[in-house]
Parts: sequence; structure tokens; C-alpha cells
Amino acid sequence: MKIIGHGGKEIVERVMDPRQAVDKIRGLTRIPIRDQLAREVVMLSYGFFTPLQGFMTKADVDGVVANMRLTDGTVWSIPIVFDLANEEIDAKRIKQGDTLLLTYQDQPMATLDVEEIFSYDLQKMAEKIYGTAEEKHPGCARTYKYADRFIGGKVTLVNPPKMSEPFDRFFFTPRQLRAKIAEKGWLRSVAHQTRNVPHSGHEWLMKGSWIACHGDLPVEKIVTGIVVSAVMGEKRKGDYIDEAIVLTHDALRTYGYFREDVHITSIVLWDMRYAGPKEAIFHAILRTNLGLTHHMFGRDHAGVGTYYDPYDAHRIFDTISEDDLRIKPIRVLAWWFCPVCGEVTYSGLCGHTKERQNFSGTVVRSIIQDGVRPPRIIFRPEVFDLIMETAEKYGFGSPYVGDEYLAKRNPLFTVPPLKL
Amino acid sequence: MKIIGHGGKEIVERVMDPRQAVDKIRGLTRIPIRDQLAREVVMLSYGFFTPLQGFMTKADVDGVVANMRLTDGTVWSIPIVFDLANEEIDAKRIKQGDTLLLTYQDQPMATLDVEEIFSYDLQKMAEKIYGTAEEKHPGCARTYKYADRFIGGKVTLVNPPKMSEPFDRFFFTPRQLRAKIAEKGWLRSVAHQTRNVPHSGHEWLMKGSWIACHGDLPVEKIVTGIVVSAVMGEKRKGDYIDEAIVLTHDALRTYGYFREDVHITSIVLWDMRYAGPKEAIFHAILRTNLGLTHHMFGRDHAGVGTYYDPYDAHRIFDTISEDDLRIKPIRVLAWWFCPVCGEVTYSGLCGHTKERQNFSGTVVRSIIQDGVRPPRIIFRPEVFDLIMETAEKYGFGSPYVGDEYLAKRNPLFTVPPLKL
Repeated sequence: MKIIGHGGKEIVERVMDPRQAVDKIRGLTRIPIRDQLAREVVMLSYGFFTPLQGFMTKADVDGVVANMRLTDGTVWSIPIVFDLANEEIDAKRIKQGDTLLLTYQDQPMATLDVEEIFSYDLQKMAEKIYGTAEEKHPGCARTYKYADRFIGGKVTLVNPPKMSEPFDRFFFTPRQLRAKIAEKGWLRSVAHQTRNVPHSGHEWLMKGSWIACHGDLPVEKIVTGIVVSAVMGEKRKGDYIDEAIVLTHDALRTYGYFREDVHITSIVLWDMRYAGPKEAIFHAILRTNLGLTHHMFGRDHAGVGTYYDPYDAHRIFDTISEDDLRIKPIRVLAWWFCPVCGEVTYSGLCGHTKERQNFSGTVVRSIIQDGVRPPRIIFRPEVFDLIMETAEKYGFGSPYVGDEYLAKRNPLFTVPPLKL
Repeated sequence: MKIIGHGGKEIVERVMDPRQAVDKIRGLTRIPIRDQLAREVVMLSYGFFTPLQGFMTKADVDGVVANMRLTDGTVWSIPIVFDLANEEIDAKRIKQGDTLLLTYQDQPMATLDVEEIFSYDLQKMAEKIYGTAEEKHPGCARTYKYADRFIGGKVTLVNPPKMSEPFDRFFFTPRQLRAKIAEKGWLRSVAHQTRNVPHSGHEWLMKGSWIACHGDLPVEKIVTGIVVSAVMGEKRKGDYIDEAIVLTHDALRTYGYFREDVHITSIVLWDMRYAGPKEAIFHAILRTNLGLTHHMFGRDHAGVGTYYDPYDAHRIFDTISEDDLRIKPIRVLAWWFCPVCGEVTYSGLCGHTKERQNFSGTVVRSIIQDGVRPPRIIFRPEVFDLIMETAEKYGFGSPYVGDEYLAKRNPLFTVPPLKL
């Protein structure tokens, strides 16, 4: 049966059995790739980026930059490109028509068919995608770091990586997640994009979005689910460590803050671009491919600094038709703690605007750094304890990314040894 | 502009200026009517019961009893009938073609065109509407009390009643409520049917239904509202007094538990039939006519005893198409207090099924009778204080209906003196 993803296209799956691949890849030119590209290779190969079958050619980048569409008309908001230095291209005599063997962790991982080698105006790319060309913007900075040229072409995973503990329990390909959703019997499911450990404001963001997503469906049997889709990728100092993010989210269900039948924790591999509205579209595409019907978007989704209005990432969905993007956005205002109501409540409903307390990242951070359990209405004690546990077990004593974590952390996945 | 109500029919409005009516009604046969009929005359005349223009003829009752439809095919679930004793019919020589002058509180109130005088098998009516013929069922009991015969025909209000304080602030005709909703700028609005003073379980039933109703609409400007639609009608001992119901609901907004821009309190005049699923349909029709787009239905809506399964009133909506009933049901499970979560939460989401505490009517009643302010998470202190105030001001010392309230309460409305 065809499984249809973004753009009405069949979910891409370009994965070979390594035993069959060895004969084909022996002797190919080897290109070691960095973390970002390795993650994108995995995503591409399993169809998270459907309809993309590989890294973009120039025409597709042009379309994305100019009007947020691929050459075939499909909505696409972020360039997915494979960069390589001129020096390496020349040294290895890479040319159109070649097939390259991408290696990671010193092992063969995937092939890349060289359809096109091109250069691109990075300033223009940054300006059009991020709405700014400032290097302070982390998305622009990432863009400016691309090497001289890009190689467009299809990717095939020839040596599927093995997800590391504890991520292995949470990694589902689009096909696997769809099977899991079918097994749960969900008719609708709403994505929660996260890079945070959840306080109760996040919990209610999810709960409220589930209710909005559930809408007017019957309730005797629950047919709506929340899919936490944690973004695992490049870490910056001060971020929550990946292990804390995924394990605390999952704990919300195991400790009963979500029922077993309404909640799944999962991960995607992606280096945040902080592209605000454009990144919101990209997240929506990702979760469309994962088989979800709805996606929650809070205030200032995927924004950074003051580059975007807090509601830019809401408004952009008004410009896109349902034919172009099947997943529906659930646009959400803040959930806050209201001392008059004595609970976490929704800013769209609660009128105690003078008394209310926002969940600020800084306050939550100081709570965690104090190490004293906050009230359960703010932070679930089991979640709080688990943050401390993961800090010890995975974070070199801290739930926040530091130099030691960056240098010595468990990798998200390892590529198994493959002898050619 | 035509204002369209239930069944795609224009909202009925059969109301005359008393100064113009006097000449037409002078000399008509007078029929004093009891409270239930007076309330139904008001509802009929202002179009709350659109497309009905008056009390049902036999064919309509037959349709409602047999297949929940009027003769014109419109869905209708509860007979709206005008009963009269043979003795009175004979004494006043009432016959088909007459116009009767209905009087209430000794004043002329409305006219009734006698289109048909008929009798009906009350046991059959009860059995078909309530699913039981047992006299213990209050709807059946009400049915069996009907006098010998029914008069079907159009009703015209000739002397509009004046709503009493504090109900006057909350009475909106379908046309008035639609104007108010338009003024608020709401695109969607969800009805909360109530005969209770609200504890925080009710508050969250409303809040959750608002979120479900709001769904995937943009949020920058709030375009969804909650309309509390309190049912005011025949009281039974132990019910909350009407004044407490309507004032405490309104207080939830004035004290900020609902924002000013998301909440309206209103009333309808209706003697509860406790018909469970059939009454749910009737409530949906009422609120369709009021211009609402959604209607929340909790567990055991309008049920009594063990006559209906708690979800019968949910399931019945699966049998009716959107063409037949435009308003959409928001079907809701229980909101409960969960001591693990430390808050009121939704049983569709919270997994602490062992620890959770339901809001039982008995517990809430004992809280109120103790007179000691409960935690604000259970009962808003302002609401609680207001219950006590209304008890003093309107309830002869109690927020619950007692003999004194039944005998001496302020009427919901008074019919002004009208000299013919």
C-alpha cells in the first residue's frame, strides 16, 4: 500500500541492506561527513523529508528561496543542501554522474548520486529564508559556514545507524510511527515540537492542543493522540541535554500525567535553524510525513532574538492552502500560572492579566539550578527528579549542555562497522 | 435580512405591540395558563423554538413521537403542547378556528389560534420520548399530568412580559443574542447548558469546550465565545435557586476566571423534561436558534436516575446529519480534581484514575452547607461568597429551593397590566 506524505507524494524510503550494498559501494570515492549532514542523510533516507530523495539541486534551492516551493510546486521552506569545499571536490575529482560514499564515524553510511555541483549566493539564501542576513542570527551563521559548493542528488542509506540508548526507544521512521498510530487507533494526532524538559506550562500546551485537535469527535473511545516530537541535533551550551528532554517527556506519561492511550514520545534528527515562520512550516512538513494530522504552535515558535514577531509563525499558515499542507496548525497562546485561579490556565480564557505569572525560561532554569523541588503545579516532582538523574547519568552533573557534554556525550547514533 | 435558525427556517418572531393588540384581543375567550405554558409561550413567540410558530398539532406530535421529526421533516425531539381540560373546552365552547386570549398573572399575555383540538395517547407519548412509561420518571410524570386534550395552533405575544431582576440582564431573544455575538466578533460560540452553580469542574468543562470549539482558528484575536445558557423553569426542592445559578455563572467572568471577551451569561425559559438524549437534541435546537455554533454535552446530559446510559446523549448525535442539525456537539468526559496533578484536569488525558476525585453533587452540596470556604481550586471564593449572598437576598436563607422559595420567590417575569 502506498503511504502518502507531504505534497501527496509516497513516503520516501531509500535504505539498502548493507549485505547487498557492499558490492555496489566498494571502490566509491569516500567523503567523510559532519554531524549535521549525517543526521540529514538519515532523515532523507527514511522519508522524514518526503518528497525529497536527497540533497537539493540548484533549481530546488532557487524555488525554496524565491517562493517557498520545490520545482514540482510542493511547499518547502528550508534548503536541505550538501556542501563540500572546492579543495575536496578537486582533490577527489568529483564530477556530475559520480556516486559518492558518505562515511561517518569512519564507517560507510550512505551513497550520494552527484546530479549537480553548484554554488549559491549564501547572503541571498540567508536573507530570503531568515528575513535577515545578520550573522548574529544562528541560521544565517550556519548558512555562511557552508563550504564553497553544493552537491545535489539522491541519497541512499547503505549502512543504517543504530540509535544509542536511551534514544533507541523513541526513534520511529515515518512508516514506523504511522504503524504505531494505527495500532493506537488514533484518527487525529497532534505534534508537540520540543527541545525542552516539560514544566506544567508545556504540559498544558499539549493538553490544550489535544483538546483543540480532538474537537467534536466522540469521546467514548479516545481516538486522538499527542506525539511529542523532540528535536535532537546540534547542541549549544546551556541547552537541555538530549537525554533529559526525551526521558522527562516520556515520564509525563509513565507517571500518569498523560494517559497511556493518548501519548507517544518520539524524536527527529534536526539541527534547528531558528527560522521562525519558515521553520514552523518545515516542522509541519516533518510531522505531516510522520503521519500526524495536527501540529501545535505556541508563541514565538522556533524564533530567536527579536527577528520575528511572536505570531509570525502563526500567520504564515494563513497563506498556505490545505492542498499544499495537509497537517493543520493548532495555534496556541500562552498557558500561564495564575495565582488567583490557583492553577495553570490559558491566557485566551483567564482574565487575571495583572496577577498571572508567565513560565519564563529563566525562572524555570533557576528552579532547576536551586535543586529544590518546586510545587507540583509548576513542575512535576517525578520530572524534576528525573532531570537530576539524567544530569548525573548523562550530563556530567548538569542537565544543561556544557563543554564536557559537547566533547564526550553519547552520540545519538552509531554507524556499525562495515567491511567492504 | 433573514435570520436563519433551526431547520434552515427564518427565526420566528410573533410579538405585537400591546397598543396595537388591544383592539384585536378585546372580547376573546380568556384562558388562564399555568407557569410552564406561559414560559413556552414566551419561548415560542421570540423564536427560541423555531421553526415552531405555536403549539403542536397532532401530526407534528405524531412525527416527533414516531421519528423525532416535524411533519415538514425538521428534527424535533420533545412535544411542545398546549393542554386543556374537556370541562374548560366545553364551558368556553372552544372550537377550531377560534382565537383564544391566554392570560397569565391575571393579565392578557398572548393569543392562541385554535387550529386543532385533539387528544393523544399519553402513555405512548411518554414511552417514545423518554424510553420508559414509568411514572417515577419526571418527564413521564409531567406527561401524565397533561389535561384531557391538546390545542394546536399559532401563538402571538400581545403583551410581552418584563423579566424580573436579576434575570433581566441575562434574557436575550435569539435575535438579541445573535446581535450580541456579532458585536463580540465571535465566529464560533459554544453553549453551556446549566442548572448549577459552577464549581471549578464546571468551569473547566466550559474552558475545555471552548478550546475544542476554537480548534484550529487563529488566536491573535479571540473569535470564539462561551455562552452560558441557564435553564430557568419549574423548580424542585433541593435545586439551586435560579438567582444563584445565573449570578454565580456571571461572576466567573466579572471576577476574571473568564476574560471579558470570551463569555456571556444568558437564560432560557424551560421546564426540564430529563429526557436524556432527546433532551440533548432539544437543547441543541434551542442553542441553534440562539445563533450558537457548538454545544457542550457532558456525561449523562439531562438524564435522571438510571434511565439512560451516561453516553446516550453523546451517541444520539451520531445518528443525525449536519444538514438536520447545524450546531456541532462538543462531547466531553469528566473533568476531575487530581491530587497527583494538584489541579482540575481532564479524564480523557489524566492517567491517575486511582487517585482522582470526582466532583460529586453531594460533596459540593456538603461544602456549601458547611459554609466554610473550600480551596479555590475546587470552588472560586467569589462564587462561594455570592452563593451565600444570593441565599440571603433571594433564597430565604438557603441557596437551595425550599417551600418558602417555591411559595414566595420573585417570579422570573411579570406580565404588565394591560387594560382592554
